[in-house]
Amino acid sequence: MEHTFDIQIYYEDTDVSGVVYHANYLKYFERAREHIIGGAKLAELLKEQGVGFVVYKCSMSFKEGAELGDIIQIRTIVHRESDYRAVFDQRAYRGDKLLVDGEVELVCVDGDRKVVPLPDF
Amino acid sequence: MEHTFDIQIYYEDTDVSGVVYHANYLKYFERAREHIIGGAKLAELLKEQGVGFVVYKCSMSFKEGAELGDIIQIRTIVHRESDYRAVFDQRAYRGDKLLVDGEVELVCVDGDRKVVPLPDF
Amino acid sequence: MEHTFDIQIYYEDTDVSGVVYHANYLKYFERAREHIIGGAKLAELLKEQGVGFVVYKCSMSFKEGAELGDIIQIRTIVHRESDYRAVFDQRAYRGDKLLVDGEVELVCVDGDRKVVPLPDF
Amino acid sequence: MEHTFDIQIYYEDTDVSGVVYHANYLKYFERAREHIIGGAKLAELLKEQGVGFVVYKCSMSFKEGAELGDIIQIRTIVHRESDYRAVFDQRAYRGDKLLVDGEVELVCVDGDRKVVPLPDF
Repeated sequence: MEHTFDIQIYYEDTDVSGVVYHANYLKYFERAREHIIGGAKLAELLKEQGVGFVVYKCSMSFKEGAELGDIIQIRTIVHRESDYRAVFDQRAYRGDKLLVDGEVELVCVDGDRKVVPLPDF
Repeated sequence: MEHTFDIQIYYEDTDVSGVVYHANYLKYFERAREHIIGGAKLAELLKEQGVGFVVYKCSMSFKEGAELGDIIQIRTIVHRESDYRAVFDQRAYRGDKLLVDGEVELVCVDGDRKVVPLPDF
Repeated sequence: MEHTFDIQIYYEDTDVSGVVYHANYLKYFERAREHIIGGAKLAELLKEQGVGFVVYKCSMSFKEGAELGDIIQIRTIVHRESDYRAVFDQRAYRGDKLLVDGEVELVCVDGDRKVVPLPDF
Repeated sequence: MEHTFDIQIYYEDTDVSGVVYHANYLKYFERAREHIIGGAKLAELLKEQGVGFVVYKCSMSFKEGAELGDIIQIRTIVHRESDYRAVFDQRAYRGDKLLVDGEVELVCVDGDRKVVPLPDF
């Protein structure tokens, strides 16, 4: 089951080299995860239970840079590795062209930054 | 003629105070302007003619902060003040609630940073 | 009494137009204000009293763009307009060249987002 | 030979969870690399030869989050793996406490995005 999410590249996303600043892909991957889990649910978890998702590990390899005006697609496959840990395979594409290949591992922590079981999503 | 554009508030948009970091509203306003002018057109202008839009002046007043999970709406009205200058009245709303009231003045510059007439949009 | 604070322009600060992305100057102004008030003091206010500084109004006019590798200087003069409101005149310079001329008005709010008197700084 | 570089954590760096937004550590690592290579040199390479450093691969593991007001230290060790590729071991510390452990691989590309030999640094 692959989740897809489109993002338009704005001026803010680029740098003087002419392409998207590398760190921004972590933001795009996170936006996609928020849509998978649900923005309202994330807000409720944080406000009512003090529980938040935390990135534990991540890696990216960069094939090609997205440019101003591009519409890129974030494609995500989620693996629940255990009750406490989820791995998100996340890739950024422009059309059929792979731009960035990433992997992000998440855990959930409570208000004391202690690991708690992942909620359903 | 009012242009409207919706934006979801992600973790990246917020700060430790719990609401959206103030400078980000300038980004949201700019995203809306890019949709008004057209991302592909902006990219073409920059690549083929070296022409870009430049913010010349801006102001914002802040009424209330958007929060994680909110969907806010950017409402924009454009005034072409002359062949060289456009003023964008831009406001961020959550439902009927005005969050931020802004005004942004733009000019166009060529590759030598000289002011040139605004293209049609 | 003018406060000065130097900032180096990195790749992350620029956009595809070749100069600093306009919204970033609000970040630079805020960094300078945090140095004026004190980072440790800000953190203590927020953690122990739930009190934070909030931008209420801001304006900027842009004269010239800073570029990758530039060291710019933020020059700030603070006016306490009342017990509740402070106005910061903030300008970004590269050498003697004025790049951005800004004004930022701040208030303080408590955990319920109610305005409270400004602390000493 | 370890290079060290201090960074103060501002409001802009944090998110609603109360700690630094994860993607920002890639920015901090990049700032440190720009100081190692030299901001003026980077700007000259880009402007005069169209040559820029590009992140090819990166990974981070997160141990603990930095907070508003913290001064963190980026510690970097560089390995030139070949004439074309450099690996930066980069870690963020608060005092003796390791916060983030990262690795970033760089190559250099010219104006046509072709890989070229790394300059001396």
